[in-house]
Amino acid sequence: MSYQRLRDRFQRIGDLAHASAMLSWDDATLMPSKAGAARADALATLAGLMHEHAAAEEVGDWMAAAADEDLDPWQAANVALIERRWRRARALPNALAVALSKASSRCEQAWRPARAANDWPAVARLLRTVLDLTRQKAQALADAEGCAPYDALLGEYEPGLRRERVEPLFAQLRAALPPLIDRALGRQGKPLPIAGPFPAERQHALGQSMMRALGFDLERGSLSVSKHPFCGGVPDDTRITTRYNEADFLESMFAVLHETGHGLYQQGLPAAWRGQPVGEACGMALHESQSLLMEMQVCRGRPFLDFAAPIIQRRLLGAQTSAAEWQPANLAALATEVKRGFIRVDSDELTYPLHVALRYELETALLDGDLDVDDVPEGWDDAMRRYLGLSTGGDFANGCMQDVHWFAGLIGYFPCYTMGAVIAAQIYRTAAAGIGDLDDAIRAGELGALLAWLRANIHERGQRKPTLEVVRDATGGPVEPDAFLAHLDARYGAA
Amino acid sequence: MSYQRLRDRFQRIGDLAHASAMLSWDDATLMPSKAGAARADALATLAGLMHEHAAAEEVGDWMAAAADEDLDPWQAANVALIERRWRRARALPNALAVALSKASSRCEQAWRPARAANDWPAVARLLRTVLDLTRQKAQALADAEGCAPYDALLGEYEPGLRRERVEPLFAQLRAALPPLIDRALGRQGKPLPIAGPFPAERQHALGQSMMRALGFDLERGSLSVSKHPFCGGVPDDTRITTRYNEADFLESMFAVLHETGHGLYQQGLPAAWRGQPVGEACGMALHESQSLLMEMQVCRGRPFLDFAAPIIQRRLLGAQTSAAEWQPANLAALATEVKRGFIRVDSDELTYPLHVALRYELETALLDGDLDVDDVPEGWDDAMRRYLGLSTGGDFANGCMQDVHWFAGLIGYFPCYTMGAVIAAQIYRTAAAGIGDLDDAIRAGELGALLAWLRANIHERGQRKPTLEVVRDATGGPVEPDAFLAHLDARYGAA
Repeated sequence: MSYQRLRDRFQRIGDLAHASAMLSWDDATLMPSKAGAARADALATLAGLMHEHAAAEEVGDWMAAAADEDLDPWQAANVALIERRWRRARALPNALAVALSKASSRCEQAWRPARAANDWPAVARLLRTVLDLTRQKAQALADAEGCAPYDALLGEYEPGLRRERVEPLFAQLRAALPPLIDRALGRQGKPLPIAGPFPAERQHALGQSMMRALGFDLERGSLSVSKHPFCGGVPDDTRITTRYNEADFLESMFAVLHETGHGLYQQGLPAAWRGQPVGEACGMALHESQSLLMEMQVCRGRPFLDFAAPIIQRRLLGAQTSAAEWQPANLAALATEVKRGFIRVDSDELTYPLHVALRYELETALLDGDLDVDDVPEGWDDAMRRYLGLSTGGDFANGCMQDVHWFAGLIGYFPCYTMGAVIAAQIYRTAAAGIGDLDDAIRAGELGALLAWLRANIHERGQRKPTLEVVRDATGGPVEPDAFLAHLDARYGAA
Repeated sequence: MSYQRLRDRFQRIGDLAHASAMLSWDDATLMPSKAGAARADALATLAGLMHEHAAAEEVGDWMAAAADEDLDPWQAANVALIERRWRRARALPNALAVALSKASSRCEQAWRPARAANDWPAVARLLRTVLDLTRQKAQALADAEGCAPYDALLGEYEPGLRRERVEPLFAQLRAALPPLIDRALGRQGKPLPIAGPFPAERQHALGQSMMRALGFDLERGSLSVSKHPFCGGVPDDTRITTRYNEADFLESMFAVLHETGHGLYQQGLPAAWRGQPVGEACGMALHESQSLLMEMQVCRGRPFLDFAAPIIQRRLLGAQTSAAEWQPANLAALATEVKRGFIRVDSDELTYPLHVALRYELETALLDGDLDVDDVPEGWDDAMRRYLGLSTGGDFANGCMQDVHWFAGLIGYFPCYTMGAVIAAQIYRTAAAGIGDLDDAIRAGELGALLAWLRANIHERGQRKPTLEVVRDATGGPVEPDAFLAHLDARYGAA
């Protein structure tokens, strides 16, 4: 009876989250330019209502009473997750939640034109507000949970993740990657360029083909255009976005394949638990593992490109071709070309973790008060020199303004990408061993067995257990970077 | 202080309405096919929250206290509107509001494929649920307001409108129109057909040109595709939709011009009162007057088509043409061709009021219990024979399933169309007299003076006064059909 009340309350919160997810998607894709203020208000009101509903006094009473009820393991896990959310919501003053939602919407809206205009001053003041409010939020959550402020933010995206778990991982990668990058740069050949232009409509059709090939259900989701690719929406309405560069179709194609990995996870969440915390994704590290498993482990590999090459040719050229640059070997070379570059989302999987390490370094410094917002461009330039030997100078659009995260209030998110890459390699190694002949299946375009394995071992488990336990159940061991480093060595370092 | 609380409360309700409007627009335009159940739940939760917020005990306390505060006329009008909404919300049980929202979403979602498949049984049961719940709602509101149930529904769309005001209007039109239709059919020539196909993208570009020409701000709104044209969204994000028939561009063009009339009203509402009841549109009769003023009084007239013809030619053919069928005289003949047809939205302005009278007859019978849902197809066929001498037989898609209204729970809405047509003619006559040389201005594509007149006399007045008073202030007299009948006589009956 009390459990029922908790369930109904979180169903309502789930419906508000549905509204919020759709309005955010719309904001980033279709919304006309002058509608931003009204939209920010609406999103803030939804955030405030979700917060009020989760933090309400009666939720505590219902949880206390539900403890005496006979609950099955899923229901019990659901109550535990509700309790965590309740405690965190109560630790966060409602006015702060609303202010942060509003400030983030405004800052994200300003970031879009500002990035295009390389106009850092246009967002610096708004970012300072977001940062100030985020620090207040981090402190409030940290006080309630007895952890450090940055850990409280990490926990917002991946429950239970701590800086002490992230630091050694980045240390290992900072040590292992630079020599591997040098080795890869030394041995790789020069792939043939593929001449465009590739009209957006054709790339769009190709993207949808690729989504279908991976098993994405286009009756429960769609593909559209935004400045920054993302996977939004809800399980039964999963909205994937990309952007089209008419000079280079691989950018958008791999962005779509990446987001499709997220989308498959979202669509595969347990249908019986829609709207309930236990039915949601574990956390963003596991989420990123699912996108990176598809993009990096599967789709940038030769077997997938053997399958995809004729489809790519037909979608973009209208017919198959025997031209060398369009053949699988060249596509694979392009898809795994290592380059020290400025843009995280365009970077290869070898340099990618260094891009993340840079952001981790800067955002922890921002949060700790060791870096001022005004010094971000300089700090970025300095870190880029140290990590990748490149200077961004005054090119903010390709430097500290390239990612939406900080401007949208997502501080503490970046480590999930690298945790995700590590988990992806570990899961893929296990899945491949369990399925057998996976390369042959992929070469034939048969992704069904892999998706079924992921559904059973990851997606349908929802949030019944935390990420690290899900990975242990699925792979038999703790999260370690050895599978990731072995994968990188095999793909990039082999003699 | 109490007024402030009321204002904040309704700002929150306005934000929920923003979310609801956008989710409804998305539902009708882009939503993937299997996302309907989750969307219906989310919309129902938003409806329930708006209802709870409007009906809350404390709103009554704040209103009582606000009566002692020094309010300006706009604030006082806002409180009066809040009181009306509060009383109606309290009269309506929350469970009923949620059930009706959910049933309407489901029924509307089922209607779309069912209409395409001419499948009446697929929606009859769902429509019965919508009707049953609507009758409960009408009775509850009628008890609270001391009026008849149908009047309570009319008041949902046009506050204060009563059946006793609508009946004589329909009686006058039922008497005046049939001889005028006969006369028009006897004297009109046969316009030249214009051969398609007209690709959707070209029609879309033409629609946007027409929107701009009328003064629609495309930075605060957009044009997209849905099964049934509508104008949704919010003032700063006005979403107009249409559908494209590649064989006949005039269908979509005039649908866009009609919805643009709605959109101009919505965009022109007083910016200082966003989210507050006093800042909203008066009611749907005045709303329809704004769409019909643009579509019928302006755009189907020869001066507008003199201006539009070269634009239409360039957008659809890529260049101007001297072919006779594309010239203004022929376009005007096509735009005012009278035909006894099945489809309301495709019908001319002479037969249109009879389509509405038919729906008014049937929906009052449904509500009074004199017509069963199962007998709607037969009742429709019978009424079509009486009003227009046509039989729909088993063609439900072109009969009782053609309009979304009943399936979406909008019973009591239809009379607003005819009230709107009458008001449109009355307002246009006054505006034209006040501006002078309006035909010349329109011929030159200069719609600015008309829009400025409408902004000042209608749009920016919001809901400070009820529709009938707004019309009296603007035109100097009560709503009467004489301007409408004079307009019809001049356009269709002149010897």
